[in-house]
Amino acid sequence: MDYVYGPGRNHLFVPGPVNIPESVLRAMNRNNEDYRSPAVPAMTKTLLEDVKKIFKTTTGTPFLIPTTGTGAWESALTNTLSPGDRVISFLIGQFSLLWIDQQQRLGFNVDVIESDWGQGANLDIMASKLAADTQHSIKAICIVHNETATGVTNNLAKVRRILDDYRHPALLLVDGVSSICALDFRMDEWGVDVALTGSQKALSLPTGIGMVCASPKALEASKTAKSYRVFFDWKDYLKFYKMGTYWPYTPSIQLLYGLREALDLIFEEGLDNVIARHTRLATATRLAVEAWGLKNCTQKEEWFSDTVTAVLVPSYIDSSEIVRRAWKRYNLSLGLGLNKVAGKVFRIGHLGNLNELQLLGCLSGVEMVLKDVGYPVKLGSGVGAAAAYLQNSTPLIQSRI
Amino acid sequence: MDYVYGPGRNHLFVPGPVNIPESVLRAMNRNNEDYRSPAVPAMTKTLLEDVKKIFKTTTGTPFLIPTTGTGAWESALTNTLSPGDRVISFLIGQFSLLWIDQQQRLGFNVDVIESDWGQGANLDIMASKLAADTQHSIKAICIVHNETATGVTNNLAKVRRILDDYRHPALLLVDGVSSICALDFRMDEWGVDVALTGSQKALSLPTGIGMVCASPKALEASKTAKSYRVFFDWKDYLKFYKMGTYWPYTPSIQLLYGLREALDLIFEEGLDNVIARHTRLATATRLAVEAWGLKNCTQKEEWFSDTVTAVLVPSYIDSSEIVRRAWKRYNLSLGLGLNKVAGKVFRIGHLGNLNELQLLGCLSGVEMVLKDVGYPVKLGSGVGAAAAYLQNSTPLIQSRI
Amino acid sequence: MDYVYGPGRNHLFVPGPVNIPESVLRAMNRNNEDYRSPAVPAMTKTLLEDVKKIFKTTTGTPFLIPTTGTGAWESALTNTLSPGDRVISFLIGQFSLLWIDQQQRLGFNVDVIESDWGQGANLDIMASKLAADTQHSIKAICIVHNETATGVTNNLAKVRRILDDYRHPALLLVDGVSSICALDFRMDEWGVDVALTGSQKALSLPTGIGMVCASPKALEASKTAKSYRVFFDWKDYLKFYKMGTYWPYTPSIQLLYGLREALDLIFEEGLDNVIARHTRLATATRLAVEAWGLKNCTQKEEWFSDTVTAVLVPSYIDSSEIVRRAWKRYNLSLGLGLNKVAGKVFRIGHLGNLNELQLLGCLSGVEMVLKDVGYPVKLGSGVGAAAAYLQNSTPLIQSRI
Amino acid sequence: MDYVYGPGRNHLFVPGPVNIPESVLRAMNRNNEDYRSPAVPAMTKTLLEDVKKIFKTTTGTPFLIPTTGTGAWESALTNTLSPGDRVISFLIGQFSLLWIDQQQRLGFNVDVIESDWGQGANLDIMASKLAADTQHSIKAICIVHNETATGVTNNLAKVRRILDDYRHPALLLVDGVSSICALDFRMDEWGVDVALTGSQKALSLPTGIGMVCASPKALEASKTAKSYRVFFDWKDYLKFYKMGTYWPYTPSIQLLYGLREALDLIFEEGLDNVIARHTRLATATRLAVEAWGLKNCTQKEEWFSDTVTAVLVPSYIDSSEIVRRAWKRYNLSLGLGLNKVAGKVFRIGHLGNLNELQLLGCLSGVEMVLKDVGYPVKLGSGVGAAAAYLQNSTPLIQSRI
Repeated sequence: MDYVYGPGRNHLFVPGPVNIPESVLRAMNRNNEDYRSPAVPAMTKTLLEDVKKIFKTTTGTPFLIPTTGTGAWESALTNTLSPGDRVISFLIGQFSLLWIDQQQRLGFNVDVIESDWGQGANLDIMASKLAADTQHSIKAICIVHNETATGVTNNLAKVRRILDDYRHPALLLVDGVSSICALDFRMDEWGVDVALTGSQKALSLPTGIGMVCASPKALEASKTAKSYRVFFDWKDYLKFYKMGTYWPYTPSIQLLYGLREALDLIFEEGLDNVIARHTRLATATRLAVEAWGLKNCTQKEEWFSDTVTAVLVPSYIDSSEIVRRAWKRYNLSLGLGLNKVAGKVFRIGHLGNLNELQLLGCLSGVEMVLKDVGYPVKLGSGVGAAAAYLQNSTPLIQSRI
Repeated sequence: MDYVYGPGRNHLFVPGPVNIPESVLRAMNRNNEDYRSPAVPAMTKTLLEDVKKIFKTTTGTPFLIPTTGTGAWESALTNTLSPGDRVISFLIGQFSLLWIDQQQRLGFNVDVIESDWGQGANLDIMASKLAADTQHSIKAICIVHNETATGVTNNLAKVRRILDDYRHPALLLVDGVSSICALDFRMDEWGVDVALTGSQKALSLPTGIGMVCASPKALEASKTAKSYRVFFDWKDYLKFYKMGTYWPYTPSIQLLYGLREALDLIFEEGLDNVIARHTRLATATRLAVEAWGLKNCTQKEEWFSDTVTAVLVPSYIDSSEIVRRAWKRYNLSLGLGLNKVAGKVFRIGHLGNLNELQLLGCLSGVEMVLKDVGYPVKLGSGVGAAAAYLQNSTPLIQSRI
Repeated sequence: MDYVYGPGRNHLFVPGPVNIPESVLRAMNRNNEDYRSPAVPAMTKTLLEDVKKIFKTTTGTPFLIPTTGTGAWESALTNTLSPGDRVISFLIGQFSLLWIDQQQRLGFNVDVIESDWGQGANLDIMASKLAADTQHSIKAICIVHNETATGVTNNLAKVRRILDDYRHPALLLVDGVSSICALDFRMDEWGVDVALTGSQKALSLPTGIGMVCASPKALEASKTAKSYRVFFDWKDYLKFYKMGTYWPYTPSIQLLYGLREALDLIFEEGLDNVIARHTRLATATRLAVEAWGLKNCTQKEEWFSDTVTAVLVPSYIDSSEIVRRAWKRYNLSLGLGLNKVAGKVFRIGHLGNLNELQLLGCLSGVEMVLKDVGYPVKLGSGVGAAAAYLQNSTPLIQSRI
Repeated sequence: MDYVYGPGRNHLFVPGPVNIPESVLRAMNRNNEDYRSPAVPAMTKTLLEDVKKIFKTTTGTPFLIPTTGTGAWESALTNTLSPGDRVISFLIGQFSLLWIDQQQRLGFNVDVIESDWGQGANLDIMASKLAADTQHSIKAICIVHNETATGVTNNLAKVRRILDDYRHPALLLVDGVSSICALDFRMDEWGVDVALTGSQKALSLPTGIGMVCASPKALEASKTAKSYRVFFDWKDYLKFYKMGTYWPYTPSIQLLYGLREALDLIFEEGLDNVIARHTRLATATRLAVEAWGLKNCTQKEEWFSDTVTAVLVPSYIDSSEIVRRAWKRYNLSLGLGLNKVAGKVFRIGHLGNLNELQLLGCLSGVEMVLKDVGYPVKLGSGVGAAAAYLQNSTPLIQSRI
């Protein structure tokens, strides 16, 4: 028995886990295999090569760890840092908060730069800290590319510029959980030392692969980093990479085949087209929010996220009630407001393998829920505004021209 | 390789085959089995009992034939009639036309009552023919419950009333392909002698089971009907029913398990709730069409179909272009206008396992396509009109209260 | 709930339906699609071209009919013959019997040539009938390539030779249900006019496609054949082939994708390798039977079937009990003895996508069941005999060399 | 494209990952879901209750961690111990070696008790160490219930008895990776403090859930244990358990539904029946090995493993060649000899959802490979010996009586 039933499909618009394409479900619908047979290493080899493309790196080394985003964070930190190391970290929402919590619990000396939730990372403060750090006591900058709780995208190119301006050798560790494969991300060009994401986000797979990519500098750092680690230790992977068997412990066969298909879909569409599609759907969403007379939690356009939109509701409405009713009444899954913005925002995830009509169906649902909870929205207004943009801007589906 | 690719899901709104629920796909995802093992007959027995419920019959005998709707038609006709028999048949659209073609090719003497496409069966003419037929030369009335090509639903209760008024013994053979499990259909109450549907319609399965249900009177007729038949012969089924092995030839194991799950979903929702849901979604669709300033191909409200809406387009637009662009540009599958109404109508199928937001996504897509082809629609107008109705009328999903 | 449960896999060794490869299950695990979109005809076109290869024909026209083998029979007969036509048909087992029954019920004048069950078609009698038929009253020879009930393979090349010897124009209609894709079958070379099979046999798909292939002469005959037919009428298919839309009525989308994958697997292995594999597995099976001290129902080696072996049991054993216990106790599905050989034989189907160890597992199960029912078999004797052959003869898996 | 192709099924007999039942594959064949909806916690709650049953605990607290067995180890250690803590650990094969390596790298003071590979844990030495440890410097005993590399099962009841004899408060941490759900394991009765397994072992799921179960004493220890941990920290789980939302980070929705079905299958068969089935299949395997004239790597019967049999090969044969050929020629996946026993043993995994005929198929394959590599085995001898035992001992499949 399923624990959820209503006629028709669930409309999944949380910012992860996201909708899995049917062809990926198909690819994963298979028995286990011996991962020590010649077949699995052969597949793994090409997977690792192809994974580098979604990080836009040629020099990085990817690790496909059987874990979640939280585990990927831990892998990034423990392989490159030692307890007591000073790191700069930005608190701008719930997920950066959780990462900072992890950094503290792993024994690092975390220098937190806080912003209002809805604002991006304060890079001016970072710059002044770097300027003051002539002794290079700062070992790493930890930053989320996209804060999933508030829909804020940070400017990584600028972070790199500042580091370069001060010729500061700190490692740049980037949480790309809700960005990679959806937002413009350039590991090599931006000098990112560790980048990471989870399979259940823009890659549109089930949870289960924490994808971590390390620069040569990060690999070098891992040789001296003293944090205790075994499961997350890159060293074991590197040893098996060298042997050509690739896996220090049992991978999920199903996820490997799923990843193969997910990558194939991305490459067939074209990674840059995938990113452009995210921008289009996000723009349409923001136009709908505007048409409803509501505000984006993100305070400035420069930080607008193309993977998730956090919508502020009037103070007389509890945003949790919106999320609850959307699911109960329309089989629409939206994201809750978390922590500081609990009750104040609801979130529309628009990342992963999605198209225009799926999004418009979601927006029509949001409109009905808004009316259900007493907000005087004109039904069709947001959908119409979004459609007006999409109808003008959307190219034909490439493969059908 | 798949032959169709675009990001996100295909939006399937042809009036069949329709969307298959995920749990039905799961149920069918299995190896073949020996259909002569004790397990398959045990399952078949309960399936046959449950299938009777969707026909609303307790006295009928169902046959699950490995065929399509066209084969189900042939089964209905050849088991009950002999070449040369006079039958009354109504030509009101492409599918009634095809059935009439079949009747003629099978050697019956078909008395065709034609209506404009967009009108229902002319029951007055039927009445007068029955009145004149004191010799009972008319052996059967053949009628589609729902003409899929024009979105016209015929009044079967009235057909029965007229037959009763004239105490005419003609068999009543009903094509319920796009009605059963979606529209109000009552085999016993309306004295239907053979009713039929296909698995790929409102049951939301793949193509492959032609479901035919015969009244005791129809079974009696089959004993003397002289049409050649073997594959479609009920006699072979009845023989195996009696033996308790049920299948004269190999059934699709996958479809049997799929049917089990499809029926379970319908019974969990409640057949009458399923029918009410079709009425709600159809009403919403008609309100959208009205808001767009377009006309329903169906000429009177009494014939409005709750499973498919055929929309008339202005003469300066080719409706085929709408269908073509919907698929190419938005991954939206709509139904073409067929034969007499080719180029003049496009069809929105709203039958099967669907919900509100799926429909609203479709309607938003239709709006964009209409604008693409030069029709001056206000984007959001139809979606808004549909949503206004749905937001007021939709009950909570039963299982989530 | 499943109606069958025991730990581990079911061992499916009935001579159809057969085991479906995991990749074919994957290919079929998908939602419905609009079969009038541009994608489905494009796929159908290549499917039809590729289907011709498994019939070994370049001049034939294939039809993929949503039906079973019984329906495929009916398609072959009704499209080429008229009621009253004289046909020669061979009664050598249950399936040829059923086909003859169909021929008679469809109104043909069937000239039955009967053999003992366990013998092949008596071609000498056929020859004398053809010799006597200087008026060419015989319109068709109907013959099963492989009688599934007794494991007898008929010599089609010889049938053609005899027809040619007498320059007799009778059509040659061949039931290839348990042969095509498994036994050596050559439509063009042997001058077969209609050949047919079902998807659930050696193609290793679910039930649902009756595959019928017509020679130019058969197509010509269809223009004048007077048997009533609509669902099975080739004319409708040919009309849609011409239009490039291919389907007169709704196909099973899932089976089309499944067929694509099934054909790809066959072509990857190589059709002749597939056939050689069937010979190897059949030889191994026969060696096991011999080692058990049991007799093959098939009376001469020239008729030995490479897709199914019917094993005669001593008279003090009821073969039905073997089949019942195999399923109940070992989750092994064997074929029953049918009709004249009921209780006397059980059948091991060794067709479709199978390998050595699957077969040896089956044979070990048969050994245990034989002992269970009181037959004094030495456990391991049959498996050992089969393995001795397989170990010497089996080539490496091609793709793994 | 699949990287492995040969006709028929792969015969998967490595000691993990193991064969997944079709119904579990079905259950996992689904889209992602919002794990913060009311549905997922409701399901999780019953899953956690049911997971306790497979550990045979009523007082333990289970954690379903998105990781592998290696991660589960790390979870067990870091939550209960602090760097520098003295632990006793047994080196008896590759997996106990790897666990010891982890313990050392996590900073514990590991007191290693080594045995020959093929022997069980030396409990006498443990006893003397405990006897000497009047200061209770030993904080934990770490032991594998079943050493997967050599097929050795340790006597946990005896470990507990010794601990009790000396009233030693050391925690008892048990790796049950290749035992739980297959061997007799009793967490509460044996006073196990942390037990763990992985989903891809006897539970017959894909890799992805590290299942860890903690006794009240272990939970208490976690409050003061100083090992750095975040991803593996039980504290975060306990916090979410209390809130009723259960998941500190995204679980795999697919694995949750898979686990539901896997547990249902186990409970339907009965956990004790499942364990008895493992004993039967293991006994049959050992009889085959004996019949082949080969030796079990496990040196005494008291240590024989019912989940994996490591078979010693004569010195003139390289066991790796056996594994390589088995896969290449017969699509049979066996386990390699690892580390000290590399080249000397091959392993037959007989755990998870398996039945008699699957095992016999495997054994017949091993026989052929043995002959291929020049070992003078009598084909059929091992299969016969195994079958003789199974034929006498196997009860009917419960659900089919």
